[in-house]
Amino acid sequence: MHVVITGAGGFLGRKLARRIAEEGRVGAHRVTAMTLADLAAPPVPPAAFAVETLAADIAEACACARLIRPDTGLVVHLAAVVSAAAEADFALGWRVNLDGTRALLEACRERAEAPRFVFTSSVATFSGGQGALIRDDTRPVPANSYGAQKAAGELLVHDWTRRGFVDGVSLRLPTIVIRPGRPNRAASSFASSILREPLIGEEALLPVAEDFALWIASPRAAVDWLLHAASMNGAALGLDRGINPPGLTVTVGEMLDALERAGGAEARGRVRRVADPEVAAIVGAWPARFDATRARALGFREAETIAQTIAVFLTDDLEETRALRHAA
Amino acid sequence: MHVVITGAGGFLGRKLARRIAEEGRVGAHRVTAMTLADLAAPPVPPAAFAVETLAADIAEACACARLIRPDTGLVVHLAAVVSAAAEADFALGWRVNLDGTRALLEACRERAEAPRFVFTSSVATFSGGQGALIRDDTRPVPANSYGAQKAAGELLVHDWTRRGFVDGVSLRLPTIVIRPGRPNRAASSFASSILREPLIGEEALLPVAEDFALWIASPRAAVDWLLHAASMNGAALGLDRGINPPGLTVTVGEMLDALERAGGAEARGRVRRVADPEVAAIVGAWPARFDATRARALGFREAETIAQTIAVFLTDDLEETRALRHAA
Repeated sequence: MHVVITGAGGFLGRKLARRIAEEGRVGAHRVTAMTLADLAAPPVPPAAFAVETLAADIAEACACARLIRPDTGLVVHLAAVVSAAAEADFALGWRVNLDGTRALLEACRERAEAPRFVFTSSVATFSGGQGALIRDDTRPVPANSYGAQKAAGELLVHDWTRRGFVDGVSLRLPTIVIRPGRPNRAASSFASSILREPLIGEEALLPVAEDFALWIASPRAAVDWLLHAASMNGAALGLDRGINPPGLTVTVGEMLDALERAGGAEARGRVRRVADPEVAAIVGAWPARFDATRARALGFREAETIAQTIAVFLTDDLEETRALRHAA
Repeated sequence: MHVVITGAGGFLGRKLARRIAEEGRVGAHRVTAMTLADLAAPPVPPAAFAVETLAADIAEACACARLIRPDTGLVVHLAAVVSAAAEADFALGWRVNLDGTRALLEACRERAEAPRFVFTSSVATFSGGQGALIRDDTRPVPANSYGAQKAAGELLVHDWTRRGFVDGVSLRLPTIVIRPGRPNRAASSFASSILREPLIGEEALLPVAEDFALWIASPRAAVDWLLHAASMNGAALGLDRGINPPGLTVTVGEMLDALERAGGAEARGRVRRVADPEVAAIVGAWPARFDATRARALGFREAETIAQTIAVFLTDDLEETRALRHAA
């Protein structure tokens, strides 16, 4: 089976590619080739099968046509313009996040057999903020363009699946904590920064109050969910191909307590509260509580605790994150 | 204020254009000009202001650019590929129902002031069938491409509104009963046929059982809702611009009872049960029960009873429907 990962240069894409390269299979399927696509050619992990890269804009139909081969059995579509960037450039966000998803689905439609298509949707498809509890059948009322684009992308994946053109699963990912590397233009970037920066001895800015709750997941849980979505029985999902995976509801204060336990009062002291109305307006609308009943019934694993998340970051990502800082 | 109606050649578009022409205003706004667009130039009702027509494909950006003027204050976007047609031609449905809506929204984005944009979404955005109760916050899980396209269109209207490019309202219309004229390619066409054809002395085919329930509204109620959506205070809607209007839940048997009261046993005898698995599969997924709490709070009027609906059809539409048959 040939595997395609878009957005493969991002932190989740790199971790996923590495896992697939290490394991050599996804579920019951042996991987025989993999294509990693991103705007710039992504890094290639060591693998026992052929791995090629493609530097391309996913919103170009011709780029998507080159990605999908007759033996493509799995597409993991991670490529996206992130939330604050999609808010800053309205046309770019719709072009990449909706048109790009459609171009990729259209390329899959040319295939004789429907490949599994794993689409990363987002908590940002919902709003309601701190008071909301999101059920599996709650309607998306996005409070930013990124969320609207992801919700619309889900509807494409849904209909292309119903028509038999792909075998789709949309995963509404929580805020991923701790992202390795540097802060990015996701409005939720602070949620990683307030743990990551103090752990490498740097200062972090906190744009919300300590009682602010978030719905989060560790990179390792997210990769596990992606691999489960890539290999699960699609028929078990029925008509509804969207999944709220079992993330973790946690307050900023709880995150800082865990930081203090791992890195001491000194680490916690590196987090400085600085109001950022623009970020607060975006993340303030995102709900922090989900019931995720369906995901658990479908075998998606539980999220990790903050303490586990910090421990895994220190083992897996600290070195790379430090190296990136020194390179910058 | 200049008013634009797309799909103005359809039965709802014609009724709406006639009402606006008669009343000369929409809510507090005096109408000074109106453009009626459809694939073929729509009929022009007598009006005290200028009415022009445009024969154009709504999915062409240049056609949309010609429709929207500096003084356009209201766009009612009715143009669509209907359900069975969108199911039969996948690419056409997405092109007209999603790309067409986007082209029209993009043309509005060029305006200095955001016009009111009334988008007709549909009961077909939902599934769950006879057992489902649709709340105002129920997630769309469409069981056909038309529903997926309408749900995606809602997300565009939602985000273009949030960004201030239009002042949008999406109305999820129930099945409209009694449509004047001839059967069309909507999967729900039978719901009108089983009343309309017997009332003009013709036979009608019934593809579902008599205990099958539908969520319906009369053309008059639908036009009232469109005019309310066109003139209501947009800010009262808040972030969520989608409305489930207060339709009527009715079984086929109740419709046939009302037919018999209006047209006698003879009329009811003209309805013949003939299984149609293709139509049953599409409409079988549509829910028939909605709570519509929010629409009532926002001033949307109640649907009419079936008896009222039949009486209005006999007064308003019987003659036109008969004339169409003789012309055919």
